[in-house]
Amino acid sequence: MSESSSPPWSSDSVGLVSPRTLHFDQPLELDCGRSLDAFDLIIETYGELNAARSNAVLICHALSGDHHAAGYHSATDRKPGWWESCVGPGKPIDTNRFFVVCLNNLGGCCGSTGPNQLRADNGKPWGPDFPIVTVRDWVRSQQRLMQALELPRWAAVIGGSLGGMQALQWSVDFPDLTRHVVAIAAAPRLSTQNIAFNEVARQAILTDPDFHDGRYAEHATVPSRGLMLARMLGHITYLSDNAMADKFGRDLISGNPQFSFEAEFQVESYLRYQGRSFIDRFDANTYLLMTKALDYFDPAREFGGDLASAFERTEAGFLLVAFTRDWRFSPERSRELMRALLQAGKSVSYACIDSPLGHDDFLVPVPDYLKVFGQYMHKVAKEAGA
Amino acid sequence: MSESSSPPWSSDSVGLVSPRTLHFDQPLELDCGRSLDAFDLIIETYGELNAARSNAVLICHALSGDHHAAGYHSATDRKPGWWESCVGPGKPIDTNRFFVVCLNNLGGCCGSTGPNQLRADNGKPWGPDFPIVTVRDWVRSQQRLMQALELPRWAAVIGGSLGGMQALQWSVDFPDLTRHVVAIAAAPRLSTQNIAFNEVARQAILTDPDFHDGRYAEHATVPSRGLMLARMLGHITYLSDNAMADKFGRDLISGNPQFSFEAEFQVESYLRYQGRSFIDRFDANTYLLMTKALDYFDPAREFGGDLASAFERTEAGFLLVAFTRDWRFSPERSRELMRALLQAGKSVSYACIDSPLGHDDFLVPVPDYLKVFGQYMHKVAKEAGA
Repeated sequence: MSESSSPPWSSDSVGLVSPRTLHFDQPLELDCGRSLDAFDLIIETYGELNAARSNAVLICHALSGDHHAAGYHSATDRKPGWWESCVGPGKPIDTNRFFVVCLNNLGGCCGSTGPNQLRADNGKPWGPDFPIVTVRDWVRSQQRLMQALELPRWAAVIGGSLGGMQALQWSVDFPDLTRHVVAIAAAPRLSTQNIAFNEVARQAILTDPDFHDGRYAEHATVPSRGLMLARMLGHITYLSDNAMADKFGRDLISGNPQFSFEAEFQVESYLRYQGRSFIDRFDANTYLLMTKALDYFDPAREFGGDLASAFERTEAGFLLVAFTRDWRFSPERSRELMRALLQAGKSVSYACIDSPLGHDDFLVPVPDYLKVFGQYMHKVAKEAGA
Repeated sequence: MSESSSPPWSSDSVGLVSPRTLHFDQPLELDCGRSLDAFDLIIETYGELNAARSNAVLICHALSGDHHAAGYHSATDRKPGWWESCVGPGKPIDTNRFFVVCLNNLGGCCGSTGPNQLRADNGKPWGPDFPIVTVRDWVRSQQRLMQALELPRWAAVIGGSLGGMQALQWSVDFPDLTRHVVAIAAAPRLSTQNIAFNEVARQAILTDPDFHDGRYAEHATVPSRGLMLARMLGHITYLSDNAMADKFGRDLISGNPQFSFEAEFQVESYLRYQGRSFIDRFDANTYLLMTKALDYFDPAREFGGDLASAFERTEAGFLLVAFTRDWRFSPERSRELMRALLQAGKSVSYACIDSPLGHDDFLVPVPDYLKVFGQYMHKVAKEAGA
């Protein structure tokens, strides 16, 4: 139309993308003993499926992620998908070679069946009546998605943090359905401290008077205080002490102490902003579900606590990536995974990336990380004939 | 009266103690620019002042501490004072040798002038109108206390955590009024992450609908949700990841996942209990004040950011103690103090105690800690002629 019609994104972006929703009408049994009669999953795909149907990779999202991993929903979008740094033409998850699938998990709040969606039986929001789902439940639902897309197996299942845990669980529960697992900044289970932080976040939400036992939608309100506190606390665990110090130090917004409870250190202002903006885009019931899925994740549990046994049957090869300054899921947690995989006789590559940010490093383009990740995915692509 | 009349405490306890309140009627100028026309400090003392008045030591309390450092208020008390492990006959702070003074700080909630006390001018609780106080203000008020007790100087000022910060500030602001400083599990200033945790705790309280801008007493309520969350979060930072893992692991109260938001991991139950019991004994406005005093503490600030300069004029000798697993104020923070003191040409002893608990180690009788502390205090006592 005019010279401004050139797309606003760079050539290594997948560019304009659209989600689509798949409906599943076979009941899904859940770990909690309940089942979903039917459910929807909203997904995005990037790249093309090859004729052999061998180049499909699944991206699993983390706590506050969704199906929009890469690209833009419109030319006026201010931000791309959450993993734009790693997904696109020529990037580690190379959309010139792979058919990339990313979904919003069950219980999520971005379009898949979850607390903020309406129930088919009574037309009301699920709210707190949505079942507490586990990583195993998600993997089971993702296997339905694989079938719906008529994929014989994944070339790789890939994720960071809670997403990495899903990738690991895939290799345990469907040992022959993924050729590779890429688990970044993940852990074989939460530590006691991890659970403790989740519990504080949950209590912040559960005790918010606007929570109304999870039926806040019916009360036309939102437990915004609780959700804000949960997010502020989360952010502290996503960044290393050093990264926070480098970014904000002890800098005062107005240069001098104000002797008030207004935000006066820069870091206070940052956290409040992060907390407030989360309220608009995330659902409190979903936040509760995600933290429980994290707490429960423990693939060794069904194998008498022996992690190596859990991985024994898998045919997958593994890439584990950790970040030096990650204190939420420290490199030691990835090494624990590595040792179990080696003990189980699996092929495993492990990289510990020296980077300052912390847990959030998995979302940013740290050069060494992109190289390690890209080289591994190059191997995955070659094997897949992509 | 009967054979049960033998005291319920062991021979190394100071036993039955009683607090007393001192009234100060000279105005106290505060860092915030306001002043207190008069104020009360509630104190406890243990041991006897010698004729030379040279054996007095001051104990400064931490965030949730008070004047009741040792002994029992009655024969039926279930718990002794908060530092019973270190204060008593034959203990590091040996009450056979020292005259020990411990106070509740200004702004506290245990009897000294603070938010939960009534104003002299209108008979109403101070509430949120109590000024935001700093570590320097506390030290200034403690110097008034020293004068009231007719003490020429302290043989030592001693404290852990925020208490250690007060001890350090004493050496900066009154360089000739303390012979020794013992700063345990302290830091020269809060890190950005420390401030961030404080900010989440404050937001939990400030956004609690029962907070009423701090005037909850007038509304006959208490911001119990906020105070509970603040305390739960605090407890996570007081314990090391390892200590939490050793104590609670991933143990489930009922053995199996319950798929509910009730406390099901042992650590959840522990944190909820700690949070709830704090509501009954602590005041939310005081909690806010304590966290601000922590955030503002930065003795180097007035000296162009040069910590060594801050300590230049002091005549005190220093003992710094850190604990290997303390991640709130890690050993590196104590080493930072040590380096500044050495640069200033001061006498400094530094011990890093290998102990699993974390920040809370300063409150418990870790054998190496008691030995290092005791030996240093033995030297202090000899110097003081005690």
